[in-house]
Amino acid sequence: MNNFIFYSPTEFVFGRGAEVQTGTLVKKYGAHKVMVVYGGGSVVRNGLLACVEKSLQEAGIAYCMLGGVQPNPVDTKVYEGIELCRKEQVDMMLAVGGGSVIDTAKAIAAGVPYDGDFWDFYIGKSTVTEALKVAVVLTIPAAGSEGSGNTVITKVAGLQKLSLRVPGLLRPVFAVMNPELTYTLPPFQTACGIADMMAHIMERYFTNTQEVEIGDRLCEGTLLAIIKEAATVMKEPQNYGARANLMWCGTIAHNGTCGVGCEEDWASHFLEHEMSAIYNVTHGAGLSVIFPAWMTWMVDHHVDKIVQYAIRVWGVPESEDKKSVAFEGISRLKAFFKSIGLPITFAELGIENPDIDRLVDSLHRNKGELVGNYVKLTRKDSGEIYRLAL
Amino acid sequence: MNNFIFYSPTEFVFGRGAEVQTGTLVKKYGAHKVMVVYGGGSVVRNGLLACVEKSLQEAGIAYCMLGGVQPNPVDTKVYEGIELCRKEQVDMMLAVGGGSVIDTAKAIAAGVPYDGDFWDFYIGKSTVTEALKVAVVLTIPAAGSEGSGNTVITKVAGLQKLSLRVPGLLRPVFAVMNPELTYTLPPFQTACGIADMMAHIMERYFTNTQEVEIGDRLCEGTLLAIIKEAATVMKEPQNYGARANLMWCGTIAHNGTCGVGCEEDWASHFLEHEMSAIYNVTHGAGLSVIFPAWMTWMVDHHVDKIVQYAIRVWGVPESEDKKSVAFEGISRLKAFFKSIGLPITFAELGIENPDIDRLVDSLHRNKGELVGNYVKLTRKDSGEIYRLAL
Repeated sequence: MNNFIFYSPTEFVFGRGAEVQTGTLVKKYGAHKVMVVYGGGSVVRNGLLACVEKSLQEAGIAYCMLGGVQPNPVDTKVYEGIELCRKEQVDMMLAVGGGSVIDTAKAIAAGVPYDGDFWDFYIGKSTVTEALKVAVVLTIPAAGSEGSGNTVITKVAGLQKLSLRVPGLLRPVFAVMNPELTYTLPPFQTACGIADMMAHIMERYFTNTQEVEIGDRLCEGTLLAIIKEAATVMKEPQNYGARANLMWCGTIAHNGTCGVGCEEDWASHFLEHEMSAIYNVTHGAGLSVIFPAWMTWMVDHHVDKIVQYAIRVWGVPESEDKKSVAFEGISRLKAFFKSIGLPITFAELGIENPDIDRLVDSLHRNKGELVGNYVKLTRKDSGEIYRLAL
Repeated sequence: MNNFIFYSPTEFVFGRGAEVQTGTLVKKYGAHKVMVVYGGGSVVRNGLLACVEKSLQEAGIAYCMLGGVQPNPVDTKVYEGIELCRKEQVDMMLAVGGGSVIDTAKAIAAGVPYDGDFWDFYIGKSTVTEALKVAVVLTIPAAGSEGSGNTVITKVAGLQKLSLRVPGLLRPVFAVMNPELTYTLPPFQTACGIADMMAHIMERYFTNTQEVEIGDRLCEGTLLAIIKEAATVMKEPQNYGARANLMWCGTIAHNGTCGVGCEEDWASHFLEHEMSAIYNVTHGAGLSVIFPAWMTWMVDHHVDKIVQYAIRVWGVPESEDKKSVAFEGISRLKAFFKSIGLPITFAELGIENPDIDRLVDSLHRNKGELVGNYVKLTRKDSGEIYRLAL
C-alpha cells in the first residue's frame, strides 16, 4: 500500500427532500451571495430550481443565475460565469445539476480571483491558490464531481478536453443529494452515469500497487452494489432504494473511498476524453465502449488483476486458465453494459469509421508519450485499443 | 435507505514515516499550544513521543504533556487534564495513542471551555457547544476514535462507562497514521483491536433498514479484508501491508463509511461496556465473547441478516435451512476469534461466575428498558445473551 491522504471534508446531506435545506446550508458555510449554475430546462420544468430559489430566499441569501451549461462543458460558459460573478460580487458557486454543471462552477470558482486566463490552470501554466466556495445540489449520479476537487472542461477552439484537480480548494463544501431528483432521468442518461461511476472505480482498481486488500474490497463491493441496483433502476426508474444506492455509489466511486493507497490508472478515461472532444459522444457511453477494449488488450499484456476482477465482481469460476477467466469477465461486463442500453463499439456509438490516427495523436499530444499506469500505453498500444473498440 | 449525513472532515495522513508531519499539521490547523496526551510507557520506549516532540519543536509549537492514561479511561484523568489545559492555555489536544488516549483527549477538549462538570455531557445533562480542537497520532488500530466524534469514559465512582457523540466538535481535525507504529503491539492487543473494528462494522450491518446494498457491501468488504489480514499479522507482526490494511479498516469501520443510511444496533457494545466497567475486561476481548452470543440469540429471534452475513462474509453455502446457515456463520466467527487468540466465553475471560443480574441491572439502568435496534432487548433477553456467553 502506498502512503496516502484521505481527506473528504464535503458534508453530504442525503435523502428524501434534502434540497429544502439548501439555503440553510449556504448560510452555515458563510456565503452572502451565490451564483446558481444550471444546465438545460429540466431543473426548471421539474420545479427543482424554484425550490432552491425559495430555500435561498427563506435563508436571506442573495443570488444570481447562470443557466445553459451543456454536456461536455465548454470554456466559453466559464468565461461568461467569471464575468458575471465579478460583476455581482458572488462569494459561493451553487451548482444545481450533474457533472457538467459542477465542473463549470468549479472552473468559475477558480477563475474569479485569478488575474489571468482560467485555462492556464488546465494546461498547467498556473496553480490555483484561491477560489470561491463551491456547493452542489446533485441531479445526476455519475461524475462524482460533488465529492471531488476535479473538473473537466473542453476548450471550444481546438477541441481540447482537459482536467484539473485541486482537492484543497475546489471540493464542494456541501452536497445536497435527493435520490428522488433522479427519477426523471432518461434511461440512456441513467445508464451513462452507471458506466461513469463504474469506470471511476475501475481506474483505481486496476493497479500494480500490492497489498491493497481493503482498497480492492471497497472497489469490488461498490461495483457489486452498482450492478445489482442498475438492473432494478432500468426496470423501475422510480424505485427509491435503487436510485439511492446508485446515487451514493457514484459519490464514493470518486471521493477517495475506493482504491486508497493505490497508484491509479486513468488510461481509459483519457482514451475516452479524445472521443468526447472529437466526436462529442456522451462520456459514459464512450467509457462503455473503451473500457472493455482496454481490458481486452490487457489480457495479453498484464492479465493478473483482470482475473481477480472477473472472479470477485462477475462471479467467474476460478481456473488455471487465467486468460479464459479474464475474457469471461470482460464478456460479462459487455453483456451488462448492453443490458442497460449502452454501446460497446464505435459503430454502436454511431461512429462507423473513427479517425484513429487523429484520436491517438490528440491523446498523446495532450497526455504525453505514455498514458496510464497499469500498463503505460504507447501510441501503438493506444491505437490497438481504439481498434479493439471498432 | 434512511436519510443520512456523511461528514468525515478529518484529514487522514497515512503511511510510513507520517508522524514527522505532526508539527506541520498542528500549525496548519492553527494551534499555538497543544497538550500531548499519552498512555503508558510504550510511546516513550519506542521513541514515538520524542519524535512527536521534535516535530512540534521544529514547527515552533509550544506544548505540555499529560501521560498515564489507562485502558478503559477514567474521569479522574479527564479532570486532571482540564485543569492543566486551563492553566497552560492550551488550544489543541494532541492524542498520541489508541482509543483510550483519544477519548480522554476528546473529553478534556469538551470540558475545558465548559463551566460545569464535564460528566454532564455523558449523562445528557448538558450539550457540548464549544471544544478545543483534537488531533491524533494513532498507535492502535481498534477504536476508530481517530475518525469519529465519539468518546467513552468510565466514572470511577460507581463504575459507570458512558459514551458521548459530538461529530461536529469532537472529531479530530487530522489523524497521523503510520502502520509501522503498530509493529510492536502485543498479539493480544492486536487481536482485541481486530475484534473491536469488526464489532463496529457489525453493529451497523445488523439493521432492519431495507435497500442498503451499498452499506452492506462496504461492511462485508471491510470484514473480508480484516479477516484476511488478521491471519497474516498474527504470524508476521512486522508485515507492513497487513498492518496497513488493518489500520485503515479500523478507521473506516467507524467514520461513517460502513453502513450508510442504516439504523444501527449497538446492543453488543452496550452489553460489553458493562463487562468492562464491572470486570475491567479489555473492550475487544469482551466483544469477542458477547458478539457471538448476541448472534446466537438472534438465530431464534431474527435470523435474516445473520444468514446473509454467514454467506457473504464467511462463505457458508446457501441453503433453505436458514438457521443452519446462520449457526455455521457464527461457528466460523468463533473459530476465527479463537485462531487469533481471543476468548469466546466468560470462562475464557477468566470470569467463572459472572454476576449476570448485576450486569443486566446496570445495563438497563444506564441504557433504558430496551437496548439495541435489530431486536430491542428486554432485561430477560439481555440475561439470556449473557448466559449464552458463559
